[in-house]
Amino acid sequence: MKNNYYAVIMAGGVGSRFWPISTQEYPKQFHDMLGTGQTLIQRTFERIHQLVPSQNILIATNERYNELVLEQLPKVSQNQVLLEPAMRNTAPCILYAALKIHQQNPDAVMLVAPSDHWIENENEFINNIKTSFDTCAENDILMTLGIQPDSPNTGYGYIQFENGDSDIKKVKNFTEKPNLETAKKFLASGEYLWNAGIFVWSAKSIITAFENSLPDMLALFNQGNSVWNSDDEANFIKKNYAKSENISIDFGIMEKANNVHVLPVDFGWNDLGTWGSLYNKLDKKERQNAVVGAETIFRDARGNMVRTQSGKRVVIQGLQDFIVVEKEDVLLICPKSAEQDIKEITQEVKTNFGEDFV
Amino acid sequence: MKNNYYAVIMAGGVGSRFWPISTQEYPKQFHDMLGTGQTLIQRTFERIHQLVPSQNILIATNERYNELVLEQLPKVSQNQVLLEPAMRNTAPCILYAALKIHQQNPDAVMLVAPSDHWIENENEFINNIKTSFDTCAENDILMTLGIQPDSPNTGYGYIQFENGDSDIKKVKNFTEKPNLETAKKFLASGEYLWNAGIFVWSAKSIITAFENSLPDMLALFNQGNSVWNSDDEANFIKKNYAKSENISIDFGIMEKANNVHVLPVDFGWNDLGTWGSLYNKLDKKERQNAVVGAETIFRDARGNMVRTQSGKRVVIQGLQDFIVVEKEDVLLICPKSAEQDIKEITQEVKTNFGEDFV
Repeated sequence: MKNNYYAVIMAGGVGSRFWPISTQEYPKQFHDMLGTGQTLIQRTFERIHQLVPSQNILIATNERYNELVLEQLPKVSQNQVLLEPAMRNTAPCILYAALKIHQQNPDAVMLVAPSDHWIENENEFINNIKTSFDTCAENDILMTLGIQPDSPNTGYGYIQFENGDSDIKKVKNFTEKPNLETAKKFLASGEYLWNAGIFVWSAKSIITAFENSLPDMLALFNQGNSVWNSDDEANFIKKNYAKSENISIDFGIMEKANNVHVLPVDFGWNDLGTWGSLYNKLDKKERQNAVVGAETIFRDARGNMVRTQSGKRVVIQGLQDFIVVEKEDVLLICPKSAEQDIKEITQEVKTNFGEDFV
Repeated sequence: MKNNYYAVIMAGGVGSRFWPISTQEYPKQFHDMLGTGQTLIQRTFERIHQLVPSQNILIATNERYNELVLEQLPKVSQNQVLLEPAMRNTAPCILYAALKIHQQNPDAVMLVAPSDHWIENENEFINNIKTSFDTCAENDILMTLGIQPDSPNTGYGYIQFENGDSDIKKVKNFTEKPNLETAKKFLASGEYLWNAGIFVWSAKSIITAFENSLPDMLALFNQGNSVWNSDDEANFIKKNYAKSENISIDFGIMEKANNVHVLPVDFGWNDLGTWGSLYNKLDKKERQNAVVGAETIFRDARGNMVRTQSGKRVVIQGLQDFIVVEKEDVLLICPKSAEQDIKEITQEVKTNFGEDFV
């Protein structure tokens, strides 16, 4: 029997707030950020692979990371790697994946998920995805997973849902990164969930949604309907991809479609977007210091996030709540509270040290 | 004409407060601590060489550093390297040097100087040494150079002198590391100088002083009078050196002899004993940050001492008055105010990381 479960792992980002580990040359999803022996994309692949056959898992990424993907995911063949010749945000590459999957299997349901998130309870995650797959197989709806928020985080997008008896709720509204006051109100209302960028739909439904909301983009990619999964696909993409509008799936589709639903989930999620969020998810050594790679001596030092190449001996005295990250030719020392400055730092690094260092 | 000027560069110490750069394997005098392209012992050698012929400059060091000395000082031949088979403080190795020099030239005057100090005004230093040489050639006295103190430093020894018309003063008294109150009194009195461990005397006079104050030690080394500067010297030293009393030249000779004089000098001196004293002597980048080796970006960071392997890119944000030192497999981050803890840190490092790291 043909398996209808498909997945697209989104692996095109750079994760610049994880500088100096994450760089344009070697972004965070290809690093073992958690010190577990597996890179983030390897963990994501294995997690999804519990439900989706390996040959049905596509990886969407920038062409410069093609080799990294094939190297780190030996079960993935070249035809499963969607190479974006240009950065055009998420909508075009999801459409590309949907058309390619639909050509393989018109009954496909597909998961879209980031390559670099942290998920604690994998069983619950799998159950949630299975529920979503089966719902989307039967219904022409676009589903998103909504994370139960545990704080008024202003760095995430929020999903407002209509209360109802069903587990799966109709979505009323999306709000991008609210201010703190608004986020607090959202939390208090009990009607809001975090948008984790994890989507489920049938290939058919998402193509229909593009027809309704982004018809020009669909027309562009429909020109490739004869080449999907053939030797000519790569050429077609090279020639046409950059012509596409640069727009996110959230803004281009989800905020416009009227068949968007959300499944509230609580599997323990973190977007691993900053050193601080990574720190929160790591096991702690004495005095709340988190360490990846290094062997450490802490003296009057608490709450630090230390990451170095494996086996480096690090002695830290008198430092509280700092990020200390060392990678070959680069060392960063910076307060955890300033983690949002790291993007700005990478700009300075580019200017002062050159392109090669970011 | 035979040149009577000789020198002994003392290069047996480890400089453990400069960990992790200075280690037992590779002590600070063999490092380019100032980022000038020359190691400290190379600078010391070149400075003294302005006055003393290279073949008259001896290097006293532990046998394990023999290769380092020959490598870094190509003008020095093996016969000029005095290899201490055991740590016995300064008196025995100065006596060894004096006897060896006396055998070569009974009219020799000799300078004894540490290998790892910083001297700003080299011309003045040379003039002071010349004055001392010429005085000691004519007079049976032991001379020490006394640094004009500019602060009540409690880490140095102090020399009290008798006021008089002559440039060279008779010494009344030596005081090791006084407490702060005492040091302040010393400074106020105008009668005290810092003891920099820089001595000048004739070989004859210092041998006489040993005869008076440390006769057993002299008797031990006199057994070697037939072997100095011969192929048998090394063997004799190997067999007998460790039998010597373990005592400093200050305590064993200078505090006991009654012919000790001091030349007050002011050539800009620093013992480079700690990261903080090194920091004080380095040129500063923006916001009083001192940097050796690294290329740096400082953001809201002031007064730091940064040293890394050459070309390392370092970004420091939000750190004030810290020591940040990186060497291959080791990284130290520690407040400058805690520089005296570094000896204690090296003990912890030994216990936790092993002998190889200190």
